[in-house]
Order: sequence, then C-alpha cells, then structure tokens
Amino acid sequence: MSSQPEHPTLLIPGPIEFDDAVLQSMSHYSESHVGPGFVNTFGETLSMTRKLFQTTASDAQPFILSGSGTLGWDIVAANLVEPGENVLVLSTGYFGDGFADCFKAYGANVDVLKGSAVGTRPQIPEIEKALKSKKYKVITVTHVDTSTGVLSELKEFTKAVNGASPDTLVIVDGVCSVACEEIAFDEWKLDGVVTASQKAIGCPAGLSISMFSGRAIAAVNARKTPATAYFANIKNWMPIMQNYEAKKPSYFATPSPQLIHALHTALTQILAKPLSERFSRHKEVSDQIKKAVADLGLKQVASSPEDQAHAMTAIYLPESISPPDILPKLAKSGVVFAGGIHKEIASKYVRFGHMGVSVTDPKRTDIQKAINALKDGLSELGYQKA
Amino acid sequence: MSSQPEHPTLLIPGPIEFDDAVLQSMSHYSESHVGPGFVNTFGETLSMTRKLFQTTASDAQPFILSGSGTLGWDIVAANLVEPGENVLVLSTGYFGDGFADCFKAYGANVDVLKGSAVGTRPQIPEIEKALKSKKYKVITVTHVDTSTGVLSELKEFTKAVNGASPDTLVIVDGVCSVACEEIAFDEWKLDGVVTASQKAIGCPAGLSISMFSGRAIAAVNARKTPATAYFANIKNWMPIMQNYEAKKPSYFATPSPQLIHALHTALTQILAKPLSERFSRHKEVSDQIKKAVADLGLKQVASSPEDQAHAMTAIYLPESISPPDILPKLAKSGVVFAGGIHKEIASKYVRFGHMGVSVTDPKRTDIQKAINALKDGLSELGYQKA
Repeated sequence: MSSQPEHPTLLIPGPIEFDDAVLQSMSHYSESHVGPGFVNTFGETLSMTRKLFQTTASDAQPFILSGSGTLGWDIVAANLVEPGENVLVLSTGYFGDGFADCFKAYGANVDVLKGSAVGTRPQIPEIEKALKSKKYKVITVTHVDTSTGVLSELKEFTKAVNGASPDTLVIVDGVCSVACEEIAFDEWKLDGVVTASQKAIGCPAGLSISMFSGRAIAAVNARKTPATAYFANIKNWMPIMQNYEAKKPSYFATPSPQLIHALHTALTQILAKPLSERFSRHKEVSDQIKKAVADLGLKQVASSPEDQAHAMTAIYLPESISPPDILPKLAKSGVVFAGGIHKEIASKYVRFGHMGVSVTDPKRTDIQKAINALKDGLSELGYQKA
Repeated sequence: MSSQPEHPTLLIPGPIEFDDAVLQSMSHYSESHVGPGFVNTFGETLSMTRKLFQTTASDAQPFILSGSGTLGWDIVAANLVEPGENVLVLSTGYFGDGFADCFKAYGANVDVLKGSAVGTRPQIPEIEKALKSKKYKVITVTHVDTSTGVLSELKEFTKAVNGASPDTLVIVDGVCSVACEEIAFDEWKLDGVVTASQKAIGCPAGLSISMFSGRAIAAVNARKTPATAYFANIKNWMPIMQNYEAKKPSYFATPSPQLIHALHTALTQILAKPLSERFSRHKEVSDQIKKAVADLGLKQVASSPEDQAHAMTAIYLPESISPPDILPKLAKSGVVFAGGIHKEIASKYVRFGHMGVSVTDPKRTDIQKAINALKDGLSELGYQKA
C-alpha cells in the first residue's frame, strides 16, 4: 500500500508519480550541507550519476545543482561557448528552439536545423552538410523533445558528427530521456548530457543534473574570455563537486539536502537493476501504448515509429476534439495528461508521459487506467474510429 | 512530539531546524506544475512573500526560482547592471566579497567598500562620499553577512543613498536576514531584496526568493543591451510569476512543487502572527545568547553591539582552542555549530545560528542546550574565563 494520499495519477511528461521512499526522503530532517552525513550522501549521489550515464571515464565530471532542467542549458551555453562562436542546434520542437534562444542570450552565433515538418527530425546527411559548411564549437540535440515526443537517435548521429567535424562538442539535452532511453556516455563519445530530476529519474523537481566529458571540461579551461555567469559557472562548481565525491566538505552555494536525499534514493532504486532492463521495460510499455493509440485510430505527433520516444507519447486528437474537451474527461477518471506546448499544433494534441514507477512498478495499474480513460473520454465526446 | 527522528540539533546559520509540517509538505504527492491545485499554491506563496517583505506596492514583483541563495546575486547582476556600469558593493564579509565577484562575472565595474576591520561595517559618511564620487547604477548591502554576523542598518542607510544619489538602485542581500530581521521594503524604499528558503524562513534549501521594486523592473526594461542570462533572466520569469499569482497556469521552466508547498507552509506559519513579534522574539533570544557569550568571557566577530545580527552569533574562540577542538565536543552534546568561513579569521571562530523554530517554538529547548554545550565543551578543553 502506498503511503501517499489518494490523488489523480500524474501522467504528464514530468513531473511524474513518485515512489513512496523517494517522497519520504524529501522529509529528511535538517542536516548541515557540510556535515559528514550529508557530504557522504551527496558524494554517493554524484558517483551514482556516473553509472546512470554509463561512464567510467575518470575525466568525466558530474554536476548536481539546485535549479530546473533549463539551468542545464545555461551551464552549456555560458561555459562551453564564447561570444561569437558557432553553435548548431538540432531542433525537434519547443525545447530545441528554447536551447537555441539560451545560446543567443550568451552571444553565440546559432544555426538551427529542423526536420522537414513538425514531428520529424533532421537527417544525418543534412547534419553532415551543415557541419562541413562552418566550424561549429558545439552541436546540440534534444534526445526526446517533450513538446513533440520525437526521439533523436544518438549513436549513429555522434559517429557522423565525429566523422564530419571531430572537434565539435556533442551536447545532448537529456531532460526527457535520461533513465528511460539508453545513453552510453563513453561508448557514444558524448561531451555533455544535461537533465533534470523530475522526469524518468523519478525525483521531485528542483535539481539540474549534468555530465561533461574531459574534452568539454578542457574546452571550458581553454576559454579566451571568462564565462558570463556566476551560479551557472562550471569553474565555481568543479572543485565543489570533486570534493563532495571525495567525501570532503566544500562550499560554493548551499545545495538542497532534502532533494539530494531524494535523488540518492531514486538513483539507488534505479541502479539496483541492470539499466538495460529499465530501458526494455519502458520500450515494452511504450509499444503497448502506441498500439492502443493506433487502435483508437489516432496518430502520433512523432511521425515515424523509429522517431517515437519510449517514455512519452504525443497524440493528435480527432479533428472535432480539443485538449480542453478531453483533459477534464481524463481528470474525472483520475488521470492527468498534459496539453500541447508546441505552438504550431498546441490546440490539436495531448501528451501522455509513461516513465518511472508508473511503468516499472508491477503493482501499479496507471498505464491501463490511462488508456481506458482516453478510450472512454473520446467515446463520451462522440468520437468513433473512422 | 516531533514526527522527526532524533537527530543532532542544527544550529548553523542555515539550513536550520524545520517545523514538522514544513518537512511533511516536502513529501507532497506529485502534481502537475500547471494544474489548478499547484497553480493556486504557487500563487498564494508569491502573494505571501509580499507580506513577508512588507510591501503593498502593486509594481513590486516577487520571484521564486529553483536555485540557491547565490542565484539571487546572478539575478541582480545579470539583469540590473549592464557591462561597464558602476556598482558599489558594501562588504562586511565573505558574502559581500562574493556578490562583488558575481557582478564582475557579468562585466560590471565594481567598487567594494569595507569597514575598517573584520567585524565592522562601512559608515554612512564614507558611503555618501563614495556615492558622490561616481555615478553608481546599483549599491548593494549584505543585511547580515553569514560569515561574520555583522548586521547592516538599512533604514538610515537607504535615506543616505537616496539623498546622495537618488537614481542609484538599493539592493539588499537578505539571505541571512529575511524573516528574522525587520525589512520594510516600501517604507525604506528598497529596490531589491534577494534571499533563500533555508535560513530564517525555515524551508529546506533549493529556492531563490527575491522582491524587486517597480523602479528596478523599469531599469531592467530600459536596458540598452539584453541580459547575458537565460534561466536567471527576469524578463523570462516576469510573466510567469504574474500569471501564477493571478492563478493562471504558465510555463518557462519547471518549478519544484514540493519545495513550493514547503515554502507555502512555512510562510503561512510565519504570517499567522505579527511579523513584529517574530523580530522581537529573535532579538530577545539573541540578547540572551550574546549575554551568555560575554559571560563566558568570549568576544563576537561583530565588534559593536549595534552591528550584531539577531539570528546568528559569530564567536571568537579562546586563543588556545580552534574550531576542530570545540565542534566535536558540541556534536557529542547533540549540537551542530558551523566553523568559520571568513578566510582572515577562519581558524579562530565558530558560528551559532539561532533562527526559526529553534527560537520561536516555545516547546523547543535548542538554545539553552547549545549554550550549555558550549560552556561544557570549553570547560572540557580546559578553558577558564580570565
């Protein structure tokens, strides 16, 4: 039995439903941020992020900061790029466009490469062509764009970048992919992955979590101008993160002991089983959901099956039905989906997040409940499959 | 009876001991950050910050962001000052110096004005002289510098600034003063106060909380160059905060529902009584502590009684005793103090935080326990009052 009071099942693409033990860790009694107990917890948490990102490289560096996922963009844009340097942003939705805006705020020259239409992604030949046309310091890709549910393939992509422009740093926005889609940091030669606590990691919102390669850190150290940032400045945090991981107290700005405890609990649970099982389980449930959506005669925003994320589904509604029609029907059945956020199609689709305990806990029936609620809600609104 | 397990009493100058109800709010079940329940909670929380800062000005604007207190410095430095503009930082310790470094990161021309020695503060005639020597866009003051326990007077100070340089924006670092020292935002004509959740407000760490005047917001809107910041950019958050306070869902970056719930609980408790009672209680307990310290024959870092903070005490140890001697003795008595953080005197003093429930909850005996532990610990180390 859950210790949480009865409440609507949150199936938006983050924040997600939380495990009881994770939520209980949020109520941890107060500790000094530099006392031995918390230093040990934070140190272990940092070490666990290495396993989560599948990196054993000694020069890879994790950072866990109070902030939201968006702060990860600032960390990348403020530290890895100097004003006037070129950045290529691959955009598959709202969040790719946002990352581009963030780079512009720090003075980068930004080119944005999009797919041919909403729901598609840029293809490797176009990416190679762009990389050969100009020297890019950084290329970014949104692993899963939460606005569209488009999944970007990373393994072949990184190979292509390394082939076409070996000096370009490869940065992944993994906010909606870390802990639900496979990410092999070392094997795929990634230079940075930024994510947040409240999606598939299954910890409440409030933490920016990132991993950078030795090559990325070297690029920060080789800057000709100092980064225009203080809180988001990697150089201010680097010794702090290294000290905590070595179980030594250290101070730059006060971390959130309660959130770090919750993250420690969430990561301990995730790493108790092979990550491959976790990714397979997310795929399996995703396949069931995608089949149910197709059986209802509905289309996904992500148009090709290979571009569809495994921990969320962006679903086009029937033409006569809008989000403000269906979302209250779902709410009556105790299910919360998210409305659309991609401005070109916002009134036409809803987003169903299926990650974390809703997918991995065999005692939970969240997913079937949501599929039934969607079916019933559409039927009540007079929809019949054509 | 507390629902928290037995644990050492945390009496550092933040994080502090938490009320049970605040900690329980940290375990709130997951909610959508744009759902009506959370939108209402966040909206009420923003409105309560106005009462906490004693402002009724309709053009004053609160911001609550995921981050630490340090992020408040970035919000000020990135938004209120353009590269090359002049800033006067009044420093009474480590945190004043840090605020100066933050301004430098954003390209400001920074002058730092200090007191004549560690433990003192710059005096009004010197401040007036500096303000007349150069046109300063912003002047900052650390209300209580957590490294020294030096309290800066704000009322006469602000009058002096307004007299000597009426266009200069007055910004207060209130990280260690909001909710324990009086701050009358409107009456004292402040332009900005930045603080954090984990000190006298009594909510776990992880939130940057700030209030800016209409005049400060106008200065942001009148910038000639865009701010070099994305997550810390006031313009990105302004409509979001206004929408939440109007109980309308809005999105720029995901807030932390659990931390906002805890802050809501903490502010509800604080505002249930007149703020003046809260400030008086902190003064009363501070007087007891200062007397006990003097009775032990010990001196404070803050040299003049009128410059001594009311929610923390930085205590010089006897010459023969260092922080690594006394802190473990205190820990054995179940009391956690903080070591020194001001580099010139770090090995010579300890810091005793006395704020929040440890001071206001009549059922708690934290303060007497700490005084006894200090007395006993020093005695065990062979100290006798001269």
